Amino acid sequence: MLSSWFWLAPAGSLLALTMALLFYRNMMAQSEGTPSMAAIALSVRRGAMAYLKQQYKVVSVVFLCLTALFALMAYGLKVQNQWVPFAFITGGFFSGLAGFFGMKTATYASSRTANAARISLNQGLTLAFRSGAVMGLVVVGLGLLDISVWFLILNRFYPASGGPEALVMVTTTMLTFGMGASTQALFARVGGGIFTKAADVGADLVGKVEAGIPEDDPRNPATIADNVGDNVGDVAGMGADLYESYCGAILATAALGATAFAAYGPEVQMNGVVAPMVIAGAGTVLSVLGILAVKTREDATQRQLLRALGRGVNISSLLIVVITALLFRALNIPNAWGIWGALVTGLLVGIVIGRSTEYYTSQGFRPTRDIAEHAKTGPATVVISGIGTGLVSTAVPVLMVSIGTIAAFLLASGFRFDNLPMGLYGIGTAAVGMLSTLGITLASDAYGPIADNAGGNAQMAALPAEVRERTDALDSLGNTTAATGKGFAIGSAALTALALLAAYIEEVRVGLLRLGVEVLNIEARTVQVASASMNDILSYYQIHLMNPVILVGTFIGSMMAFLFCGLTINAVGRAAGRMVEEVRRQFQEKPGIIEGRDEPDYARCVAISTKGAQREMILPAALAIAVPVVTGLVLGVGGVVGLLLGGLASGFVLAVFLANAGGAWDNAKKYIEEGHLGGKGSEAHKAAIIGDMVGDPFKDTSGPSLNILIKLMSMVSIVMAGVTVAYHLL
Amino acid sequence: MLSSWFWLAPAGSLLALTMALLFYRNMMAQSEGTPSMAAIALSVRRGAMAYLKQQYKVVSVVFLCLTALFALMAYGLKVQNQWVPFAFITGGFFSGLAGFFGMKTATYASSRTANAARISLNQGLTLAFRSGAVMGLVVVGLGLLDISVWFLILNRFYPASGGPEALVMVTTTMLTFGMGASTQALFARVGGGIFTKAADVGADLVGKVEAGIPEDDPRNPATIADNVGDNVGDVAGMGADLYESYCGAILATAALGATAFAAYGPEVQMNGVVAPMVIAGAGTVLSVLGILAVKTREDATQRQLLRALGRGVNISSLLIVVITALLFRALNIPNAWGIWGALVTGLLVGIVIGRSTEYYTSQGFRPTRDIAEHAKTGPATVVISGIGTGLVSTAVPVLMVSIGTIAAFLLASGFRFDNLPMGLYGIGTAAVGMLSTLGITLASDAYGPIADNAGGNAQMAALPAEVRERTDALDSLGNTTAATGKGFAIGSAALTALALLAAYIEEVRVGLLRLGVEVLNIEARTVQVASASMNDILSYYQIHLMNPVILVGTFIGSMMAFLFCGLTINAVGRAAGRMVEEVRRQFQEKPGIIEGRDEPDYARCVAISTKGAQREMILPAALAIAVPVVTGLVLGVGGVVGLLLGGLASGFVLAVFLANAGGAWDNAKKYIEEGHLGGKGSEAHKAAIIGDMVGDPFKDTSGPSLNILIKLMSMVSIVMAGVTVAYHLL
Repeated sequence: MLSSWFWLAPAGSLLALTMALLFYRNMMAQSEGTPSMAAIALSVRRGAMAYLKQQYKVVSVVFLCLTALFALMAYGLKVQNQWVPFAFITGGFFSGLAGFFGMKTATYASSRTANAARISLNQGLTLAFRSGAVMGLVVVGLGLLDISVWFLILNRFYPASGGPEALVMVTTTMLTFGMGASTQALFARVGGGIFTKAADVGADLVGKVEAGIPEDDPRNPATIADNVGDNVGDVAGMGADLYESYCGAILATAALGATAFAAYGPEVQMNGVVAPMVIAGAGTVLSVLGILAVKTREDATQRQLLRALGRGVNISSLLIVVITALLFRALNIPNAWGIWGALVTGLLVGIVIGRSTEYYTSQGFRPTRDIAEHAKTGPATVVISGIGTGLVSTAVPVLMVSIGTIAAFLLASGFRFDNLPMGLYGIGTAAVGMLSTLGITLASDAYGPIADNAGGNAQMAALPAEVRERTDALDSLGNTTAATGKGFAIGSAALTALALLAAYIEEVRVGLLRLGVEVLNIEARTVQVASASMNDILSYYQIHLMNPVILVGTFIGSMMAFLFCGLTINAVGRAAGRMVEEVRRQFQEKPGIIEGRDEPDYARCVAISTKGAQREMILPAALAIAVPVVTGLVLGVGGVVGLLLGGLASGFVLAVFLANAGGAWDNAKKYIEEGHLGGKGSEAHKAAIIGDMVGDPFKDTSGPSLNILIKLMSMVSIVMAGVTVAYHLL
Repeated sequence: MLSSWFWLAPAGSLLALTMALLFYRNMMAQSEGTPSMAAIALSVRRGAMAYLKQQYKVVSVVFLCLTALFALMAYGLKVQNQWVPFAFITGGFFSGLAGFFGMKTATYASSRTANAARISLNQGLTLAFRSGAVMGLVVVGLGLLDISVWFLILNRFYPASGGPEALVMVTTTMLTFGMGASTQALFARVGGGIFTKAADVGADLVGKVEAGIPEDDPRNPATIADNVGDNVGDVAGMGADLYESYCGAILATAALGATAFAAYGPEVQMNGVVAPMVIAGAGTVLSVLGILAVKTREDATQRQLLRALGRGVNISSLLIVVITALLFRALNIPNAWGIWGALVTGLLVGIVIGRSTEYYTSQGFRPTRDIAEHAKTGPATVVISGIGTGLVSTAVPVLMVSIGTIAAFLLASGFRFDNLPMGLYGIGTAAVGMLSTLGITLASDAYGPIADNAGGNAQMAALPAEVRERTDALDSLGNTTAATGKGFAIGSAALTALALLAAYIEEVRVGLLRLGVEVLNIEARTVQVASASMNDILSYYQIHLMNPVILVGTFIGSMMAFLFCGLTINAVGRAAGRMVEEVRRQFQEKPGIIEGRDEPDYARCVAISTKGAQREMILPAALAIAVPVVTGLVLGVGGVVGLLLGGLASGFVLAVFLANAGGAWDNAKKYIEEGHLGGKGSEAHKAAIIGDMVGDPFKDTSGPSLNILIKLMSMVSIVMAGVTVAYHLL
């Protein structure tokens, strides 16, 4: 019997989608401003849509191939569930749809935000934020919708009469739909990240450094591509990334719940499984409340703006703590208070990571100012100190996730280390808690590029100085929310990956059953697979830390994070190089451009970034998908577990390093531009620009792509678990 | 009964020390050249010795404190072996002694090499190489001596009549003397690394970039400090690093052997234990042979020089393969051929890693040339592409170590994954194999800074152009050997750390025994600690990959690598900043310096680097020692194992990245200086210099320090195993 609480999930989903539609309509009703503003927005929108179309083409081919492969596995080799191909496709489709809606909204919103800023700061903020909220709400709405629909369908096919194993089958099957979301996210993040930074670095290198024209200057042929990039990378990419974390966390926790509560009877098991969905549903409702609460006075200062955004997030977070306490009581699952504690732990970890990111990347604090100081002795010292600071900044987030992981495990397991299923369910719940108010946190993220583009629009359309001051204030706020958003994305990816890692073991047991293995010989004992505990599976595959397969898997996982990162950085370098050549060519062939007489060929730069991104994303993407498969086929289950752990441990820390170093360089440059240390045009400023350029691929390409890598490798392993169990060399 | 084969170890040791003395005397008998050459050499020597004195002071304080702590643990809390404090001191003392001799020789040899190069290239090569060989032979000689003496002493106190447990006690006790070597190496690598790069970056920033004077120009006040730094970092630091790996690998393998062969009777067990020492003894003899074979024709080309060095290493490596095959037959241990295969695997891994390092860092190949190409678009793209290439370059070394680990395990265990003791003994033997010819490989490493200093000496003493061409040829050869040497140091550190990780589990069992724990309840079974297998210990402490303590330990270990790296990079930044100020001050206060009329104050720059290094090494060093202790006290045995694995997996990959990126930038700059892409003084050259400066702390401070970190954390954990077993929070 479906728990009636379950319906909170689809209800939340529909509310989110309805609100998103309202916000969208509301935004579209606003004026685009002057014809020149509308024209610029149109160029950006066309560029963004052209890119998205190209990306979806590539993704479609990949999805076709993978679906065929999964179909072969499911219907030919029979090592995989029959639902997997379909679940895979819907996961990818819904994620792509969310990206499409989010980006469409963002590209319509930028000129309208710039226009609203002509009236007042508050109007600009509200419009930009509610447009960002469309992305946030579409992501959680479509995510929950997909989960709800599949849960309803699969519950029909595996009815409760099948005993506790029925829900295990439902949830492990659903987990594989995360693979679709992961694959979509991979291309969105990697492709979008390469696009945006090739345009940005290319525009800066020739425009700012060589020609000496300011950012977002309409004379720079790459400037439209740069603005397109913000949408492509920061809106669509970030959205797909968090869509994946959101679904992954909910699905992994549901799968862990099916096992953890199997012994407590059908009702409790069902409630344990739907709990993460219910929390997500409640969080969606509270996100909407929080979004509506974001407004400020007409004459608000920068600080008041930030407080207005913070208020929305705080309201949602506080309410979710209270509401979930009531929900867990109502769900009537064992150790409800402990599990609720795990959820609160996740929320707290998210908040502290956000603060730590702010400390290390905002020019209001010492680390970033120190980096700016080093600009006085030139680019080498700026780069060195940014790298040093970024490396040091990994300590707090890692410690927080560590403390959170142990706390969540112990709270949920009743302080028993051997109670793996409950403890791991707790870790999953912490991830769900962190992501429960994603509707509003993602709204603040997507707000950033919209404000950024509004600023670009105002600059290019030569709006008066006071309007540009307002858009600058909005943009600067966006930088802070973007930095904390990145910290949040990484932290949630780490917890989600941990939950997925745990779910993998569950998937292996199901894989054994599907293969027809009935008993396992573990040392002197014989264990029925159907009733095998997680510990039994671990013992059977010798998943301990002296097994060379695990050690080697860990090495390879760690290396994968570095290699993937290197490939994406090199991709940006190459694509940016092509952009530099194109901009130089345009300047050379049409000297009128730099004098403001000739119109540059914006579309060509967009096309170059698109082509570059499309070409360059293939290799890292192929690697991310292939390595877990090959590792499984060669090293077996143990090797895969090692791979996932190594990839997670290194990838998580590396991602924090890249995001924070990049953010700190960016703001060190801004700090100097604010008039410190010689201000704009000084030698220190030139050095800081170089630091910022080095940081660009760090924070917007490789760092965010690592979030995807650590989740995708888990997802691939989960989907391939059946194959790994059946075929492996060692 | 001691195996008579054992005596090959002390014999090899004495041969090495005798040859070192001969080479030293021979070198000292040569002329120092002109009075100006002698004066410059004296300045460098004085600076180096002053630094070493300061470093040893700091180290003495640390040793006093730690010895007191270990004495308390051994005699007060009784959780530790009574021999530990003494073993700890001798390990540190012998390592320090090796550093002292090596550096003394190197600083005497530089002017003599420059003088020999006035006569011919061959004389220069032979002198520099044999002086480097003093370091190599002293390291292996003193290492083997310390091991031999302790083995003889402890065998008296734990006679064979004590059953198979006696040798376990002997070897686990000896393992702790590695902690002394590790602590010494920590300060040598971190302090030396900070010294050398503070001087180098400081000298480059003001001298090359601001004042526009060439490298090693006597007008630069930091130039003597820069030359001192080469000795302090690359000779003493590298020597201490490899001393630690060498002893660590032998001792860990011996400890693993005591367990692996315990069931085969006293004779086989003894042979299994002495096998790594015997191999090392044989390797030492063959290293001497190889060193004597290094010579070239008078009119040798650069390529012939490289071949001459390569011939020595090849002869030693080939002979060790043959000789060990005979030795293993003679030692009569089970599966001798498999273990010999593991040894050969280690040798091969070392060779391939060396080649891969060369490919990624030499200007003869594409990656470095690509980085140089990126110099055309400025410093940002040089830095980005260097980082990208460095990240990608991690793949081959990690794959090689991975393949080597699995191959060594399977060969030694007879292809049985559950035969942990034999398999892990195989991994240890692979490490010993890789390091067996350390005498000659380290000789080629230490040759580098000697040749570099000879070049500096020739430049500062204004020797004629043809002499400088010869020293440049010697120096350039040194760059190649230094790069491959770094790859070798990292690879051997990784394998050694794996062996130490395995030995840690053994140490935990001994810790349980010492604590008076007699039986362990593992699930439904009861196991006697005295006869507990490694698998039992793993099961008892739940050292599997779903234990949150292990997961969190892995996170923290991974973070430690990044944090340690960040702290050392920032330390270089700060110390270099002080150097920049000093050099600027000297140029400003005495304008005569730059015109060549006034003598700069070299000593003050040396003092600043010394003080900077001394101050800055405290925090990272304290952290490296404290974190494993705290992790053990909070998270227990499982947390420590996770910490070591995470630190190893991340630290290893990070170290490869840093070393290769740094090496590639260095040679990209050299490639441009050779006349490509505009040559010296071009914009591309300036950009490449910035890349090189960024790479300086990468390759010479943080990267090498990571080798120490991964070994030291294992050593600390091993020494503290008794405390961790007795006291832990979770």
